[in-house]
Amino acid sequence: MTQVLRVGVAGLGTVGSSVVRLLDKQRDALASRCGKIIKVTAVSARDRSRDRGIDLSAVQWFDDPVELASSPDIDCFVELIGSENGPAKAAVEAALKAGKSVVTANKALLARHGSDLARLAEANGATLSFEASVAGGIPVIKTLKECLVGNRIERVSGILNGTCNYILTRMEEEGLSFEDCLAQAQALGYAEADPTFDIGGYDTAHKLAILTTLAFGTEVNLGAIYVEGIASIDEIDIRMAGELGYRIKLLGVAERSPSGIEQRVHPTMVRKDSPIAQVMGVTNAVQIQGDAVGELTLVGPGAGGDATASSVIADVADVAQGLFGSPFGWPVVNLGRSVQEPMKRHGGGYYVRLTVSDRPGAAASIVTSFAESGISLESIVQRRSEDAVMRDPAGRSGAPVPVVIITYATTEKAIREAVNQTISEGHVVEPPQVIRIERE
Amino acid sequence: MTQVLRVGVAGLGTVGSSVVRLLDKQRDALASRCGKIIKVTAVSARDRSRDRGIDLSAVQWFDDPVELASSPDIDCFVELIGSENGPAKAAVEAALKAGKSVVTANKALLARHGSDLARLAEANGATLSFEASVAGGIPVIKTLKECLVGNRIERVSGILNGTCNYILTRMEEEGLSFEDCLAQAQALGYAEADPTFDIGGYDTAHKLAILTTLAFGTEVNLGAIYVEGIASIDEIDIRMAGELGYRIKLLGVAERSPSGIEQRVHPTMVRKDSPIAQVMGVTNAVQIQGDAVGELTLVGPGAGGDATASSVIADVADVAQGLFGSPFGWPVVNLGRSVQEPMKRHGGGYYVRLTVSDRPGAAASIVTSFAESGISLESIVQRRSEDAVMRDPAGRSGAPVPVVIITYATTEKAIREAVNQTISEGHVVEPPQVIRIERE
Repeated sequence: MTQVLRVGVAGLGTVGSSVVRLLDKQRDALASRCGKIIKVTAVSARDRSRDRGIDLSAVQWFDDPVELASSPDIDCFVELIGSENGPAKAAVEAALKAGKSVVTANKALLARHGSDLARLAEANGATLSFEASVAGGIPVIKTLKECLVGNRIERVSGILNGTCNYILTRMEEEGLSFEDCLAQAQALGYAEADPTFDIGGYDTAHKLAILTTLAFGTEVNLGAIYVEGIASIDEIDIRMAGELGYRIKLLGVAERSPSGIEQRVHPTMVRKDSPIAQVMGVTNAVQIQGDAVGELTLVGPGAGGDATASSVIADVADVAQGLFGSPFGWPVVNLGRSVQEPMKRHGGGYYVRLTVSDRPGAAASIVTSFAESGISLESIVQRRSEDAVMRDPAGRSGAPVPVVIITYATTEKAIREAVNQTISEGHVVEPPQVIRIERE
Repeated sequence: MTQVLRVGVAGLGTVGSSVVRLLDKQRDALASRCGKIIKVTAVSARDRSRDRGIDLSAVQWFDDPVELASSPDIDCFVELIGSENGPAKAAVEAALKAGKSVVTANKALLARHGSDLARLAEANGATLSFEASVAGGIPVIKTLKECLVGNRIERVSGILNGTCNYILTRMEEEGLSFEDCLAQAQALGYAEADPTFDIGGYDTAHKLAILTTLAFGTEVNLGAIYVEGIASIDEIDIRMAGELGYRIKLLGVAERSPSGIEQRVHPTMVRKDSPIAQVMGVTNAVQIQGDAVGELTLVGPGAGGDATASSVIADVADVAQGLFGSPFGWPVVNLGRSVQEPMKRHGGGYYVRLTVSDRPGAAASIVTSFAESGISLESIVQRRSEDAVMRDPAGRSGAPVPVVIITYATTEKAIREAVNQTISEGHVVEPPQVIRIERE
């Protein structure tokens, strides 16, 4: 056996180092499977002197990843630099223009420029694969792209950010505040020093944008996604959710609506006994509903060097065997236009927590506002703390007290109207909390 | 677009009819994805006059599936006849010899003749795909064959038979006997009139044989699998499992052992809070452990016409796009020899239920037998029914009473010794029940 696939890896952080190490460890098995030796022959990273626990003595070093990307000495370019622009984008574009097979784990790059990069790949007879860009080691890209092509996909949703799921899990299990759990996640390396990208829901949105294109065949459109993060989730919301039989998860959801594809990322109350509610800690999960298959659930590690490298290597092995189609499953020219479905048309149940002055008439006023917006209430709970009851048994002090409302199915528009109405009547003393409920 | 993939379908039962219907329904989307029109141009089935709710007026009819398989008018042969020999085998062989792309859902055929058929495919430049043969709509074949090639797989296990899982679920939820639940499953069409193949564990073994080859790269070896079914599971076992924090599932498990691959199908106690324990009813689930990815869990429909057709169509679309490698992921010549790991070397915890005469000394004798075999007991429960206590408060009647033992990790050999010893001492009045425990 003499055929060799020469791989160039740009970016030698946790994932890049795992890719180099695992390709070496599995070299014989991969050669036996693919009929080709898959060999890292060149790398590029910022710091040449850093010890990464991998032997780079026999590989060519490039200071410039763009130069590596178009080097005639590699067949397959693996981009693990990250970020949506800068050297990552320049290098991927250079590799595609040179007709190389490109493998990337870069969700931001794909969410921003996915359609353009796919177009560039097609125009140059190059290939573009990105199994590692969504949900780490879970093979959700290939599942949507190849395994479910006999289906009309109705919905794809998931827990796509391990940091957020870890924080929400700890808040529930330990009864801790969001801030304490975030600090824990940072101490354990599950959250960045600047956690905005994760906890703000943006990381989930990037991944959802990619899944939406694969599932529905529409152009990649990050801008069409409604995004809310988890920073506003309070301990009381976690507790109330539990009492009501729900658990709070940050979900990314894309589903068909009458006029397009609704794409949204926000904290969601899911039934405690649903499969998605069982996914705890940093684990990721994706659920797919297709008209033929029904529902599939894929659960696994969403991050980590080796788990992500597992997906990168799967793409590289496909390249070695010539197993690749259009980057997003359809030739770019056949991708549909992405029509943004306005969030105000979203329909479903809602959890609304209003903090009101504990005065007679507050609850009645709220109920009236919701009724006027045509919203039916499943339950309303006004619960003063034991402390408050001890201090002020008659409830005359006007101290703040939470009122929690669960609605039957209604629209986002109606909820916003009703909440604004209660605010305008002056009873609400803190920003209201609104969490959407998934009942299926 | 003028290119057409001409598909011949043999077998028009539930799955075959779904395949024909869905290929027609999704024709435009598939053509848009694959760049080829995928068209059923010929079929074969036993009864030409039966109304299957699909329009066959424009397709060629073959009475003989073998003739269809080698017809020059088809490019891709889809075998949905079933059974390990007879026309299914003859037709698949004929198609492979004619160099066709073959897609099948036939687990029995693959479990018995998988290596030979793969060899035949290679020798004739044909392809052989079988996503639908294991776990229906769950894409576990492709996951093992393509998505995890960067891993050394340590273990693959799963709930692979919906009939058994339905029966066990009903026994637990309704407190009914095995026989009652089997009758329910038959009434609902979840179980065959002769249910031996399902409840005996043989269907699960067929699927496990296929997964083992894909996961570990060893030749298909159905004979190396230890098989036990669920017919011996009693209501008391379900109840005791629940009290001890476990649930009983029929699992197929293949895992690396020091000297080979241990392959086994048997009722298993799994922790109630484990992901696999959440899989209820006819749903299937597969868990895969790889050294890089950690653990993946795939959950979805294991049967049903449309769900199974979803996997068949995925294979056909791969054929249309030229996306196929070796049938089992490795060229047959590179598959390792399958070495049977004797079950007596199996290590783990055990649940043992012995029905003994309620006489002084019985429990002591059992404990002694287990100690002599070097087995440490986690718990032993001897519980007389309330009725029995009322009738015979002093326990002098010698009426049968169950003794339930949970052991710490030990070996199958030791358990068999200990159980045989207690039997030989004459205390045991009914066949003993032994259920293996998975604690991970």
